[in-house]
Amino acid sequence: MDDTHIGPNAIAAESIRCIVKLGGAAITCKNELEMINEDNLQTVSSQLRQAMIMGSCSNKVVGMDWSKRPGVSDISCTVGDFGDQAQLNVDFSEFIVVHGAGSFGHFQASKSGVHKGGLNQPLVKAGFVATRISVTNLNLEIVRALAREGIPSIGMSPFSSGWSTSNRNVASADLAGVAKALHSGFIPVLHGDAVLDNKLGCTILSGDVIIRHLAEHLKPEYVVFLTDVYGVYDCPPTEPNAVLLREIAVDEDGSWSVVNPEVENRNKQVEITVAAHDTTGGMETKITEAAMIAKLGIDVYIVKAATSHSLRALSGELRHSIPADWLGTVIRFSRRDG
Amino acid sequence: MDDTHIGPNAIAAESIRCIVKLGGAAITCKNELEMINEDNLQTVSSQLRQAMIMGSCSNKVVGMDWSKRPGVSDISCTVGDFGDQAQLNVDFSEFIVVHGAGSFGHFQASKSGVHKGGLNQPLVKAGFVATRISVTNLNLEIVRALAREGIPSIGMSPFSSGWSTSNRNVASADLAGVAKALHSGFIPVLHGDAVLDNKLGCTILSGDVIIRHLAEHLKPEYVVFLTDVYGVYDCPPTEPNAVLLREIAVDEDGSWSVVNPEVENRNKQVEITVAAHDTTGGMETKITEAAMIAKLGIDVYIVKAATSHSLRALSGELRHSIPADWLGTVIRFSRRDG
Repeated sequence: MDDTHIGPNAIAAESIRCIVKLGGAAITCKNELEMINEDNLQTVSSQLRQAMIMGSCSNKVVGMDWSKRPGVSDISCTVGDFGDQAQLNVDFSEFIVVHGAGSFGHFQASKSGVHKGGLNQPLVKAGFVATRISVTNLNLEIVRALAREGIPSIGMSPFSSGWSTSNRNVASADLAGVAKALHSGFIPVLHGDAVLDNKLGCTILSGDVIIRHLAEHLKPEYVVFLTDVYGVYDCPPTEPNAVLLREIAVDEDGSWSVVNPEVENRNKQVEITVAAHDTTGGMETKITEAAMIAKLGIDVYIVKAATSHSLRALSGELRHSIPADWLGTVIRFSRRDG
Repeated sequence: MDDTHIGPNAIAAESIRCIVKLGGAAITCKNELEMINEDNLQTVSSQLRQAMIMGSCSNKVVGMDWSKRPGVSDISCTVGDFGDQAQLNVDFSEFIVVHGAGSFGHFQASKSGVHKGGLNQPLVKAGFVATRISVTNLNLEIVRALAREGIPSIGMSPFSSGWSTSNRNVASADLAGVAKALHSGFIPVLHGDAVLDNKLGCTILSGDVIIRHLAEHLKPEYVVFLTDVYGVYDCPPTEPNAVLLREIAVDEDGSWSVVNPEVENRNKQVEITVAAHDTTGGMETKITEAAMIAKLGIDVYIVKAATSHSLRALSGELRHSIPADWLGTVIRFSRRDG
């Protein structure tokens, strides 16, 4: 397992439409331990469904979570809905979902220092186990929320799927497995995870790094980051004068600059907010990772989850031009003219 | 991904001590949908811990599930227990845990016919998603129960870990990932799962088939099946005259016969009980799979979970001779004399 497992035939020529990041801050209650933001998650799932089946004729939602839910006495099995199967043959276009941890996993990871490695220490080893329990729990809940909206979602936990790192850089990943799931008609759902690192022993592999690796190898048409603010700002968005950066251009050398709104000093460093318990970096990691994706010629949209703006981004409406009333940040590769 | 992913260096020469199957009937309430048998699971987890750390000096249990539990207000984080880390350096010998589905997954699988394949049918596709949600939910709860006993357990869901089949036979499996997790000090926890099949589209891969494949390639010292009866009987164990078969010998051609107790007609077919909702076969599959493992020279013990007999089997006490007061079934390879 010394490479990324991509056989020549494993990944079809057909390109993947979209890789979407469900930011931890958007789908969990960040300040409440292991609490999902149910309303946001439900809206996000419904918008994902709309974006995935664009052009399909059937609007009937057939739930695929036939499990008991806490507080609900019976299971919701939709087998009776399958009378006329032809009507239900909805084509889902190829999306990959990756989610962050939010208030799941971070507590366990930061208490034990899993991201710093050192598996021979009992505390780190216990924290590794505790972190994986917490993030796989969140993964299951997200897969269920998507399945309730009729999305054929399949959890693919990075540790189990052969993702590992070398000094925090991706060293191996079973991308062929992701492609195989997609081509079988499923929507793979990955997440930030604790993984083995061949230099450090272990570390945390963030959802943002996973997205970059997937984008690099699977070349989606576009990438969407759903977050809890309207996009990238020039200073913390809680400040009264914060300006939303609508378009960021990435140069061939990977450096980036704001092109809309025009600013006096384009090299001015954008200030960033990082929540104290976010062990994998906040907006700064996101911009750096996004810039690396944009450099591949893939547009990246950073947008507030569960808004009309996120639906437009997910649907691919922004690919040709950005409407004036759209709120969010586009990060694009800028080919220099002449 | 056309083979089983075993690199020459991936699996160390050092052999794995034990592969243990937690039977679905032993750890769930078989007749109640998605209900865990908490008492049994707790006892099984505690016995597994005892068996794994035999010879270690430390008996202190350091819980590794730091998540919220339903009905429990706070999380149980044991970071404070890590003051003297040296004391906590418990060596766990190499065990692999595989569990069945019991009352998880079977309902979803049988309603939709996932085991028969046909992913292009909406009902089968939905059932595939619903089955995976149910069995990964059980996997998470088992990983948590083991972690609460201080076992560094790691869920490795077969679908995510590259297991797939061809006409229901294992076609690929990331065994190197399992070995890597083991050698990093973790206890991998696999389970019966819905997987892709390159002939049928999809099918159910049972925990018993997973165990045989793991045993074939990783050569454990012994294999234990924990179930809800004392072992294999000559007729359904609910019948008054049922006789527990204490020892079954497997010939080189794979056929098997009862050697203890001695029976008049050794070729008499052992009757088997299969619960109606068990889509992956019951005791018959178990004996067939067990016979194939025994043929490799690996002893197989079928024993009632959460009893003194299961602890003795897990501890490896039966490897040289079977005590007269031990209740269970041993399945062994019989080398013909002369």
